[in-house]
Amino acid sequence: MSFDYINALLKKPTTRTPIWVMRQAGRYLPEYRASRKKAGDFMALCKNPNLACEVTMQPIDRFDLDAAILFSDILTIPDAMGLGLYFSEGEGPKFKNPLQNLADIEKLPTYINDDLSYVFDGVSTIKKALSGRIPLIGFSGSPWTLATYMLEGGSSKTFANSKKILFNEPKSLHLLLDKLTNSVIEYLNQQILSGADSVMVFDTWGGVLSKQNYLDFSLKYMAKIVKGVKAQHPNIPITLFSKNGGKHLSHIADTGCDGVGIDWTVELDDAQAQVGERLAIQGNLDPAVLYATPEIIEREVKKILAQFKGDTGHIFNLGHGITPDIDPENMQVLVDCVHKFSQDYR
Amino acid sequence: MSFDYINALLKKPTTRTPIWVMRQAGRYLPEYRASRKKAGDFMALCKNPNLACEVTMQPIDRFDLDAAILFSDILTIPDAMGLGLYFSEGEGPKFKNPLQNLADIEKLPTYINDDLSYVFDGVSTIKKALSGRIPLIGFSGSPWTLATYMLEGGSSKTFANSKKILFNEPKSLHLLLDKLTNSVIEYLNQQILSGADSVMVFDTWGGVLSKQNYLDFSLKYMAKIVKGVKAQHPNIPITLFSKNGGKHLSHIADTGCDGVGIDWTVELDDAQAQVGERLAIQGNLDPAVLYATPEIIEREVKKILAQFKGDTGHIFNLGHGITPDIDPENMQVLVDCVHKFSQDYR
Repeated sequence: MSFDYINALLKKPTTRTPIWVMRQAGRYLPEYRASRKKAGDFMALCKNPNLACEVTMQPIDRFDLDAAILFSDILTIPDAMGLGLYFSEGEGPKFKNPLQNLADIEKLPTYINDDLSYVFDGVSTIKKALSGRIPLIGFSGSPWTLATYMLEGGSSKTFANSKKILFNEPKSLHLLLDKLTNSVIEYLNQQILSGADSVMVFDTWGGVLSKQNYLDFSLKYMAKIVKGVKAQHPNIPITLFSKNGGKHLSHIADTGCDGVGIDWTVELDDAQAQVGERLAIQGNLDPAVLYATPEIIEREVKKILAQFKGDTGHIFNLGHGITPDIDPENMQVLVDCVHKFSQDYR
Repeated sequence: MSFDYINALLKKPTTRTPIWVMRQAGRYLPEYRASRKKAGDFMALCKNPNLACEVTMQPIDRFDLDAAILFSDILTIPDAMGLGLYFSEGEGPKFKNPLQNLADIEKLPTYINDDLSYVFDGVSTIKKALSGRIPLIGFSGSPWTLATYMLEGGSSKTFANSKKILFNEPKSLHLLLDKLTNSVIEYLNQQILSGADSVMVFDTWGGVLSKQNYLDFSLKYMAKIVKGVKAQHPNIPITLFSKNGGKHLSHIADTGCDGVGIDWTVELDDAQAQVGERLAIQGNLDPAVLYATPEIIEREVKKILAQFKGDTGHIFNLGHGITPDIDPENMQVLVDCVHKFSQDYR
């Protein structure tokens, strides 16, 4: 196995800067679009372990990536809780039964791993397919991020329902977040038992909160997840990623996680100065750089490599998922540049 | 005239913390919805000076606000340049003729004030209606923000076209930004000649850029605007507001502007510690607090008042525009709480 990804997370020596890319198995790849067509729709693709494995492996077979990530969705947990996840074309994720009130929250089941067996089967299928070449990352959405979708019924610009409950009925929101936290812990632990070598928590919407609300309603629960996973699997590295969370890095480091993801609106050297002694940093190329020419991609990759000081503790990634309209050739340029030039900047 | 708003911006003594609210003339007010219906559509409302005045005055007549802001749109300049602004229901602003290439940029006219006379007529009409009660704020979008709409043809999630040109043809983008900057300077200066007591530049999308790109492609041009307006009108205070720009405050202060707007993801006391000596700070209640009960609104207003140290230099506002689904009663609670309690926290 190439251990660079895990070693970088644990700040052990690496041969070169490892790279993987958020949404590396995705619509920018023609073979992914073919698999999705075969599956029928996005959720059918997620729920079929063989197809989930197929698309997980597609970028691995194409590019020299240092980690694979389970192909799945962050909203599998609310779906398993009975909210009825579906995707409407061009509008993103939706729930048939969004949460309306406290009674809905109280009714939610917390032990839902039985309904998520397709995920664990996917993990073990992928693990076999990888046959030890590179590590496999498992993941979940953060409790706050899951809660927003469950309360809004889908994506939102204003987060009206989530913030209404946050301000007016914080206890109800805490009950929801507690339930989600317990489910996420069991979910990630089972992914690890099924073969995940590392896990990541995506907090897509933590950045829409004020600092105190971020600490109380998002980070506090991610800290519980770190604790709950470490209690069962002390050696499995955990990465937390709050989009737009660059101002909270020292608090994120306090959770005891091993790595933190940052987006491109934070400077990598600033982030390293703040928390580089305590954990590994994942990021942080602007995904839009992949719209540029190979020369510009190389220049921007070098800028990021130059910002990071030291031999380990950096996992190269985009600051957000790769977008569907990217030319796969440019992804190739990115991966190759990181590997080719990382030694020059150590 | 109540001078608190202008005095706070200039850090002169104030009687109490002044407040105005972004989008205070807007869809949350039933009388606004009636005016808009009368006008036909949003652009017809903007382009009719008497109706623009009518809706500007609506929140002033209802609430004890410390400033009025011209009712208009940030995209009037590209519209006057010939791009054909229109609004499609639920999808936000669109351009009939987005910019496709360098030739389109080269063709753009820069002196466009003749086509914006409806704005200046609006300003002078409002100024008369206010009859010196409170100051009037004029505004423009920032060059970078205008450029993104002109290049994308409307709103965007990925800013693919804008970033493609930023990375691949920076000179073409700088040409566009230069032209827009000149137009914005003339536009704001003419608003001031027509009666605006203060002007503000809204940089809605500066926060989607990395630090260096923000400095090079957004802030640099806002700095030119500050200079160009101050050259003609040295005593007119200027406020810059980059959404998600809380990490760039010291650079924003370097432009020589008088005030900086901040959103709720920055802490007001942190912002004051960074730049409070150099300029006034506008903000920064989470607009979602207005979904809460009056008791919670009062608590959150007090938290913000408590964060700001000193007698002047704070203009209370939301961190973003008030949303259409807010109860006007809650806006009343907000305005009254700020005035009622601000003395207690000085």
